[in-house]
Amino acid sequence: MKTLNLGLLGLGTVGGGVANIVNNNAHDIEARSGVPVCIKKALVRDIDMEKARHDFGLSMVETITTDVDDILNDPEIDIVVEVMGGVDIAYQYILRALHNRKHVVTANKDLLAVHGTELFALAAQKGLDLGFEASVAGGIPIIAALQQNLAANRIESVLGIINGTTNYILSAMTSQKRTFQEVLAEAQELGYAEANPASDVGGLDAARKLAIMSSLAFNCQVALDDVYVEGIDNITPEDIAYAAELDCVIKLLAIAGRSRPGDGRPEGVTVKVHPTLLPVNHPLASVDGVFNAVYVVGDAVGETMFYGQGAGSLPTGSAIVADIIQTARRIITSTTGTLSPQYYNTIPIVPLDQQTTGFYIRLKVIDEPRVFANLALFFAEADISFASIIQKPRRNNRAEVVFITHPCQEGQMRKALTALESYPKLEKVYNIIRIENE
Amino acid sequence: MKTLNLGLLGLGTVGGGVANIVNNNAHDIEARSGVPVCIKKALVRDIDMEKARHDFGLSMVETITTDVDDILNDPEIDIVVEVMGGVDIAYQYILRALHNRKHVVTANKDLLAVHGTELFALAAQKGLDLGFEASVAGGIPIIAALQQNLAANRIESVLGIINGTTNYILSAMTSQKRTFQEVLAEAQELGYAEANPASDVGGLDAARKLAIMSSLAFNCQVALDDVYVEGIDNITPEDIAYAAELDCVIKLLAIAGRSRPGDGRPEGVTVKVHPTLLPVNHPLASVDGVFNAVYVVGDAVGETMFYGQGAGSLPTGSAIVADIIQTARRIITSTTGTLSPQYYNTIPIVPLDQQTTGFYIRLKVIDEPRVFANLALFFAEADISFASIIQKPRRNNRAEVVFITHPCQEGQMRKALTALESYPKLEKVYNIIRIENE
Repeated sequence: MKTLNLGLLGLGTVGGGVANIVNNNAHDIEARSGVPVCIKKALVRDIDMEKARHDFGLSMVETITTDVDDILNDPEIDIVVEVMGGVDIAYQYILRALHNRKHVVTANKDLLAVHGTELFALAAQKGLDLGFEASVAGGIPIIAALQQNLAANRIESVLGIINGTTNYILSAMTSQKRTFQEVLAEAQELGYAEANPASDVGGLDAARKLAIMSSLAFNCQVALDDVYVEGIDNITPEDIAYAAELDCVIKLLAIAGRSRPGDGRPEGVTVKVHPTLLPVNHPLASVDGVFNAVYVVGDAVGETMFYGQGAGSLPTGSAIVADIIQTARRIITSTTGTLSPQYYNTIPIVPLDQQTTGFYIRLKVIDEPRVFANLALFFAEADISFASIIQKPRRNNRAEVVFITHPCQEGQMRKALTALESYPKLEKVYNIIRIENE
Repeated sequence: MKTLNLGLLGLGTVGGGVANIVNNNAHDIEARSGVPVCIKKALVRDIDMEKARHDFGLSMVETITTDVDDILNDPEIDIVVEVMGGVDIAYQYILRALHNRKHVVTANKDLLAVHGTELFALAAQKGLDLGFEASVAGGIPIIAALQQNLAANRIESVLGIINGTTNYILSAMTSQKRTFQEVLAEAQELGYAEANPASDVGGLDAARKLAIMSSLAFNCQVALDDVYVEGIDNITPEDIAYAAELDCVIKLLAIAGRSRPGDGRPEGVTVKVHPTLLPVNHPLASVDGVFNAVYVVGDAVGETMFYGQGAGSLPTGSAIVADIIQTARRIITSTTGTLSPQYYNTIPIVPLDQQTTGFYIRLKVIDEPRVFANLALFFAEADISFASIIQKPRRNNRAEVVFITHPCQEGQMRKALTALESYPKLEKVYNIIRIENE
């Protein structure tokens, strides 16, 4: 191979990052991959020569095209880099690329969450690489860690802050004591949140990434539907202040766990995304702003954490170009297609009701004698005990009570809450937030 | 290949960890490597059947030997795992293993710091793997990160807390306000420090690891002698308290940096190990106790950090077995020997005098009029300016002064200090500690 030719599907934020890295670090990339790497064609929606020249220099102008066939049908293109986003069209293009015997590198977790299994199988069958390091946590090499570097371990848990938008919002709410709506509006102005932020703030984006990570961690297929999801839109500055009183911060965590034989938990894996009270001394607690981090516990390695920027042009480009370099090496050694995800385990998903966690429960009650005792009884009857309780008087004969429970099953909590609903002295359940305290 | 046979040189702390992982996680290791992995022989100094049976079960008893030829001359052994430590004998054994066409995995940074270049070249020439992930930062996959996962980047800096002993000592001195000597004695009792702690507390151990990391980060050969080294034995609780006043902690950092074209710094790399004032909000600042972490800045990925246990039986074993699994895959695909370190750059080491850093300087002076002004003049004459100053009265007409300088060249500081030496009102230079504030 004289040159490794790339075809970029998309030249937006991430595609532009890839182009800049390939151009700026050409010398290192050639030395490390064993071959010069060159962008032969880049698919764009509209050709804007002026912008292309400005952003990438003259050389890129000659490569841009609006016709995907210029890439998918070009026999000289070795790797198709899918950075266009979206699901359906990207899926069709990747399928065609694989059928035309092109390796693929993608940053598209939405697509992998839906079509990953089929595409990985097709790539493996054809001896092609399908790189996806950039699909989770941007520049952080967590895919490589789970697939290769921690391969000696039985992975016990994966805890991730893997959505920059929600982490930015929660960090700003915490440091500036502002509301979710205020900070979201600001994040949208700054470009840290999308105009339609639903999939970020609702937890779906993190759930997609967790499905990918947990499938690799446990070597079993975890589907997006297996992941329990709650977003951060009901978190208030009051909850954050109570968390601080309890030496905790509130983070949107993506959590995957696997029971150990004989540990008393139901056999299987748990996969969930929800706001979480996290002790301030946990390594993830100080991961703020748009940074991401993934905390992995393995039976041999113990606690590890991988930290970095989870999105953005160059960090995501870094992961994509690392995949390109790996594929270049494998092309040279004729070993492409040897590193597809291995799903040799079939492990049940533990039903939510049987999962165990501590809870933070914030209630508003009528402040009368016996009310507190009665409240406590609802939980006692569901066998739930408390680690701590905060009660504060409020105006108009109302009291605000925060219960922190010892770990209990979600089913027990549901039972207690259902019973509580009928209690006339309860005026409002402000919030129920899970606690990570393993 | 029906089975991948390992020969262990050593069955102590790390060798025992490898044996336990290979035995406990046999199913996962086979699935992930593509072949059953088995310990065929393990070299020990004295055969203690009782201990072997107790630690590893009956199967291991049959494998232990005191004769290294049982491993090096056994044609069925595919990978020699060197976990005996020391330099000279380990070097001879690894040489023989490579000449006998065996792949090698080693955790031995002492050996690599001295003989690495020769051994890597020999392995590459023979198409053999020489895995060394475990040689730096135990279970943290920092070798893979620098060699593969961050390969799209021009690495700008590597900052590591990569010696558990010194980090334990500094963390305990900080949280318990105790002296170096007290905490060192305790660390020795607890097994966190060696009976002869010189190479840990003096910084040599970290320097060896930094030589390995910086060679990979910059793709140029950095020798141990290139690394400037200072240990932590002169750090006092007073220094730590002043650092806290300045919102800093004191850590033993291994620091490698590379100038960017046009950034005004002398062209080249800097490699140094020394105690460092680090702002409390730096991701490395909260890495405490025996944990290690390596913070890497790349031009594309930006800031990243890799965190975990840097030593110990199972964490180090995790890295070794990851290397074994990678080599197994490469044996199966006939691609061993394709991932040796690439030293395609020749980059000068910037002389210490031309390196730039901020300084913390703690002095004891006679508390008289004009003394402070005179002190400031010594620095002004070397063109050094201050970011902050703390002055506290002491008994007997003495004052203690702490200067925090803006970044200046080491040569300027040397000039100022030489001039200061002749100042009769200066009674003592307690300490001079560099500041990391990039």
